[in-house]
Amino acid sequence: MTDANLSLIVYGKDDMRLEERPTPEPGPKEVQISMRSVGVCGSDLSFWVKGRLGNLLLSQPKVMGHEPSGVISKVGSEVTHLKVGDRVAVEPLKPCSDCSYCRRGLYNHCSKPVNSGCITRYICHPANFVYRLPDNMSFDEGALVQPLALAFYACERVGLRAGQNLLVTGAGCLGMSVVLAAKAYGANKICVTDVIPERLDFIRKIGADVTALVKEDEDPEVVAQRLVGLMGNEPDVSIETSGSQSATSTTIYANRSHGMVLQVGFSTDTVQIPLVVATFKELDIRGNHTSRNSYPAAIEAISSGRVNVKQLISHRFSLEESINGFTIAANKSGSKVIIDCSRPNGNSLSD
Amino acid sequence: MTDANLSLIVYGKDDMRLEERPTPEPGPKEVQISMRSVGVCGSDLSFWVKGRLGNLLLSQPKVMGHEPSGVISKVGSEVTHLKVGDRVAVEPLKPCSDCSYCRRGLYNHCSKPVNSGCITRYICHPANFVYRLPDNMSFDEGALVQPLALAFYACERVGLRAGQNLLVTGAGCLGMSVVLAAKAYGANKICVTDVIPERLDFIRKIGADVTALVKEDEDPEVVAQRLVGLMGNEPDVSIETSGSQSATSTTIYANRSHGMVLQVGFSTDTVQIPLVVATFKELDIRGNHTSRNSYPAAIEAISSGRVNVKQLISHRFSLEESINGFTIAANKSGSKVIIDCSRPNGNSLSD
Amino acid sequence: MTDANLSLIVYGKDDMRLEERPTPEPGPKEVQISMRSVGVCGSDLSFWVKGRLGNLLLSQPKVMGHEPSGVISKVGSEVTHLKVGDRVAVEPLKPCSDCSYCRRGLYNHCSKPVNSGCITRYICHPANFVYRLPDNMSFDEGALVQPLALAFYACERVGLRAGQNLLVTGAGCLGMSVVLAAKAYGANKICVTDVIPERLDFIRKIGADVTALVKEDEDPEVVAQRLVGLMGNEPDVSIETSGSQSATSTTIYANRSHGMVLQVGFSTDTVQIPLVVATFKELDIRGNHTSRNSYPAAIEAISSGRVNVKQLISHRFSLEESINGFTIAANKSGSKVIIDCSRPNGNSLSD
Amino acid sequence: MTDANLSLIVYGKDDMRLEERPTPEPGPKEVQISMRSVGVCGSDLSFWVKGRLGNLLLSQPKVMGHEPSGVISKVGSEVTHLKVGDRVAVEPLKPCSDCSYCRRGLYNHCSKPVNSGCITRYICHPANFVYRLPDNMSFDEGALVQPLALAFYACERVGLRAGQNLLVTGAGCLGMSVVLAAKAYGANKICVTDVIPERLDFIRKIGADVTALVKEDEDPEVVAQRLVGLMGNEPDVSIETSGSQSATSTTIYANRSHGMVLQVGFSTDTVQIPLVVATFKELDIRGNHTSRNSYPAAIEAISSGRVNVKQLISHRFSLEESINGFTIAANKSGSKVIIDCSRPNGNSLSD
Repeated sequence: MTDANLSLIVYGKDDMRLEERPTPEPGPKEVQISMRSVGVCGSDLSFWVKGRLGNLLLSQPKVMGHEPSGVISKVGSEVTHLKVGDRVAVEPLKPCSDCSYCRRGLYNHCSKPVNSGCITRYICHPANFVYRLPDNMSFDEGALVQPLALAFYACERVGLRAGQNLLVTGAGCLGMSVVLAAKAYGANKICVTDVIPERLDFIRKIGADVTALVKEDEDPEVVAQRLVGLMGNEPDVSIETSGSQSATSTTIYANRSHGMVLQVGFSTDTVQIPLVVATFKELDIRGNHTSRNSYPAAIEAISSGRVNVKQLISHRFSLEESINGFTIAANKSGSKVIIDCSRPNGNSLSD
Repeated sequence: MTDANLSLIVYGKDDMRLEERPTPEPGPKEVQISMRSVGVCGSDLSFWVKGRLGNLLLSQPKVMGHEPSGVISKVGSEVTHLKVGDRVAVEPLKPCSDCSYCRRGLYNHCSKPVNSGCITRYICHPANFVYRLPDNMSFDEGALVQPLALAFYACERVGLRAGQNLLVTGAGCLGMSVVLAAKAYGANKICVTDVIPERLDFIRKIGADVTALVKEDEDPEVVAQRLVGLMGNEPDVSIETSGSQSATSTTIYANRSHGMVLQVGFSTDTVQIPLVVATFKELDIRGNHTSRNSYPAAIEAISSGRVNVKQLISHRFSLEESINGFTIAANKSGSKVIIDCSRPNGNSLSD
Repeated sequence: MTDANLSLIVYGKDDMRLEERPTPEPGPKEVQISMRSVGVCGSDLSFWVKGRLGNLLLSQPKVMGHEPSGVISKVGSEVTHLKVGDRVAVEPLKPCSDCSYCRRGLYNHCSKPVNSGCITRYICHPANFVYRLPDNMSFDEGALVQPLALAFYACERVGLRAGQNLLVTGAGCLGMSVVLAAKAYGANKICVTDVIPERLDFIRKIGADVTALVKEDEDPEVVAQRLVGLMGNEPDVSIETSGSQSATSTTIYANRSHGMVLQVGFSTDTVQIPLVVATFKELDIRGNHTSRNSYPAAIEAISSGRVNVKQLISHRFSLEESINGFTIAANKSGSKVIIDCSRPNGNSLSD
Repeated sequence: MTDANLSLIVYGKDDMRLEERPTPEPGPKEVQISMRSVGVCGSDLSFWVKGRLGNLLLSQPKVMGHEPSGVISKVGSEVTHLKVGDRVAVEPLKPCSDCSYCRRGLYNHCSKPVNSGCITRYICHPANFVYRLPDNMSFDEGALVQPLALAFYACERVGLRAGQNLLVTGAGCLGMSVVLAAKAYGANKICVTDVIPERLDFIRKIGADVTALVKEDEDPEVVAQRLVGLMGNEPDVSIETSGSQSATSTTIYANRSHGMVLQVGFSTDTVQIPLVVATFKELDIRGNHTSRNSYPAAIEAISSGRVNVKQLISHRFSLEESINGFTIAANKSGSKVIIDCSRPNGNSLSD
């Protein structure tokens, strides 16, 4: 089994390959997981299509995928809360647990950041970041815990609460997850913008109250006025998910004074924004990087039926056909693409 | 008395005039104040030298000065906590107290913002925003309550506390006040940057632990590395007071993850900044606009001797010579310029 | 019209009377409101049944009722955002807007607190604390804005957010409102305790996930263990609505470390509680007094259908029969009692 | 060396013994420390004098002392940031780093709490909780890092900031540390109460602005009025350090509305307090349990000279005479007692 760990690996811009890698063995505090459904995320696509993510260059070949679910296939000697056969969602970070950030609980800022690349047959991962799925949750739902946890975390970072009006810029996978999460948090009116009409049609179906089609080159101040008109009020809170410079500017112009603007999308090296407007308004422009401590709440929300993540899935591909899946995802012609990492003829006995 | 209210008025870029204006009478909840020492602030200078402040254009002639002290000369019918002869500092905003921001206590975001222009003989002002000075405080110290209150508020907005390391970009009047306030808040190591060596020499005397001379066109990422080296650690908190785009970028590159960057300086319409770095670091970039509820603490700090603001004053001019005072201030050749608004031959009997 | 203002007035313990009072005229910033539905609250009952509310003694006769809706019948000279005929909910506090608390936006701590007693034909009230009802909301729903606003505020004070587990002690009107609000805030599992089985039956219908019948004299530590078993986890947040000393103790024993316990119920002068347990756990025991800035969100939540407050209403009485209504409410045999303050033969022309 | 680890052990009420214990060997992530100065804390005394601390019973014999300094004598295989001979302060908790609290950075709530007892020759401790002392700090100062870190943490928990007025109940070692910390945080006026006049005399010398002698059986509401008179204002923040029920009640009566009351002292099983007053005032009664992430700031504050902890030390005893030291400390006749745990004839070569 140690030679047959088929994995999807990105080598650089436009260069992604399926390769056999050695199957890893778990350390004392780790579990080995036989992967099942793994979602394709915009950041995976970015490494493939642009060779980078925001200002992060791809420095070495990297196994794709960080929205994973699977089945425990081996258990490290010190692990007590998980056993072989458990169906799980995985928080893909592998924090060191020793650095000054980990010690303060800020593990998404770990000084020695490592991720498990999950579009593969087997990974080993710290048991503390692996979460048992309730029986009523599928592996596909398990894969979508990661983006929902990120969206829950985003809502928490901006202190979103019942009755607030929210502007979301970007209706991609991230924007969709944020809309689902914001509904769970009790947001009042949610307005979403995007440059692609089909995305706006879809996001209205899953909960956006109003949407606005915008163009890349529109004046953000004019767009902001239009959005405030559509919403009836200045948003209390804005969440930027697209990485577009003009979208960030739009949130600054639109949001009410003394409110929050969360930057989740990864923009280019530098952006040109009306910071002085944010200064006068005393906006709080916060960055967001993955999530922290949000898996349990996301799992509960899916399991209880309060959040329906299944509706986000548009396509499924096997690991063998995963490059086709990435092509579909890159065309923005659908919403969430799932890669099924199971073996074609069933998994090993240990599953 | 109603015809003799000499006032310093800015009409536009490079156009500032001394004029007689009518003397105002106080409404029921107002007091009339015979002005004494009034400080010259960078934002006053900006309206004179550039005809604007950040993205705020001068729309009509405006009485200069918003760092005021004076003596109560008349009291409105409903005012009970102040009396004629009281020596006072004045918070220059005149909030409406009715709008949604005022109601939530966010009076520095009042929807109908009006300021008292204070380089004049008499103003009328809401009694609620006028503060009696302790006997041991001079009018000059009273004038400096405003910038110190702003700096206290800035420290509070970033949650500065004992033991934290602070980066301040800009060693002008704002930067100096922030250093004094940060010492009072118990900051550990304070590093200040500026483009003018003399300012750095002075700010070390009043409390900066380390300083760095920077150039406008230096790469902010390189500057940031230099500053982290000087401080021994990444700053926990950064306060930008210069309005320079490269200074804002420097704070983003230098500050530790999950920290705070406060933007106090007014920058130009838009700035080019590495927002993606702030996103990854989960920085909190906050805007700051004047202050709120900080006068009492600033007065206590000066009166108790914990903060020495007198050392900031470099020049004093009479109201009649105030334009000379602005020229000195604009040359950046000194620190704080005070305009003495008293009548040349003593003030009226009512004082 | 100035002589016929029928009002329900409490004079002391067990002494409540219907009396004609003069009809008030609005000041410049006030409106006169012709009352419609007004809810009966536990604190009204407390003044009647005990002659006090918590440690607050009834010092003078007092018009009952502070959960009001009505129709604007006159408008003060400076009021611009309301007009005669507007259907409204009223926030019953009349803050001074001048004291140090009002100025900081903490108007529920106004130094000169006055309430409008609302079980009457007409009140005059500051226009700033009167809110127009959307067309799709009834007067009964308008009356229930007050308790829902309080419950929203309670959720906000404890920072309740999606995915958290909540313990509510007390299933009376307050507890019911908190359950409705907590669902809107996205709470995961809600457990409610009470000493009356029928109340628990009802609260499960409106959203409690689990309930526990408790006895006044049970050991709170034992009750707490039982509740943690029922919930599957220690609650993240607890909200005490009953005013019972043992309920407060239960929340302290049950809640997880570093969590929040909100005290909304008014207890007796002093209570015996295990404070040392809260010290070790670093609990945050917060007090709650009415609400602040929560009316708009509560109105939106009702109008949008996200919160159904109508289901709380069990009885309606006319103003003339209001004492009967209080008797029903005091018997705890129902949930919310509404007093209809309209004139029997329709209201005046001005409505 | 493994047989000669002289240790001070409490077996129960009034039963404390000096015994030889085996010398421990460090695990891979631990260091072995040769103890030097160790402070005696009120909680040590409580176990000896009462056989308990608050509601915590002594369940088994326990090595005393948790305010330690020392010299690294051995280093575990994975430790990189410390070496033999380093002079250090030690944070006495040994968190598991795996439980849900540790993972969120709340290590002072670790589910499996273990402390290093430090009045002994040698301990082994997780290297991550051992801090190198700057050259200009003595071992005595190193021992006082623990109480100062606790006091810094207390100030942070209540959000104390420049200009606020603070009430401290209790002038023992805890109260003294809080006064030193509060000065570093920029507190405006500090008022301290105690039942022992000498303690108040001393605490005024180290920074209290006003003090009040109180009696155990005084009415807390009357005491509160007296304190507000002395301070000139209601305190913004109160910190209770004595564990006395009446002191807690005093803080609730005295503190301004919407303020903070921190409970640091360990009270008895239950206390009788005016919770309803805290409810009306919307006070925030927070618990405090040791500290978290405060060592670096406390060390910086001592090393920079901003806080002088040496003035707290009244007595020094050798480990062999440590029981005499406890007797002195229990008599409350002095302030801080230090036990010097060095070997009489110098330490081993490895130091």
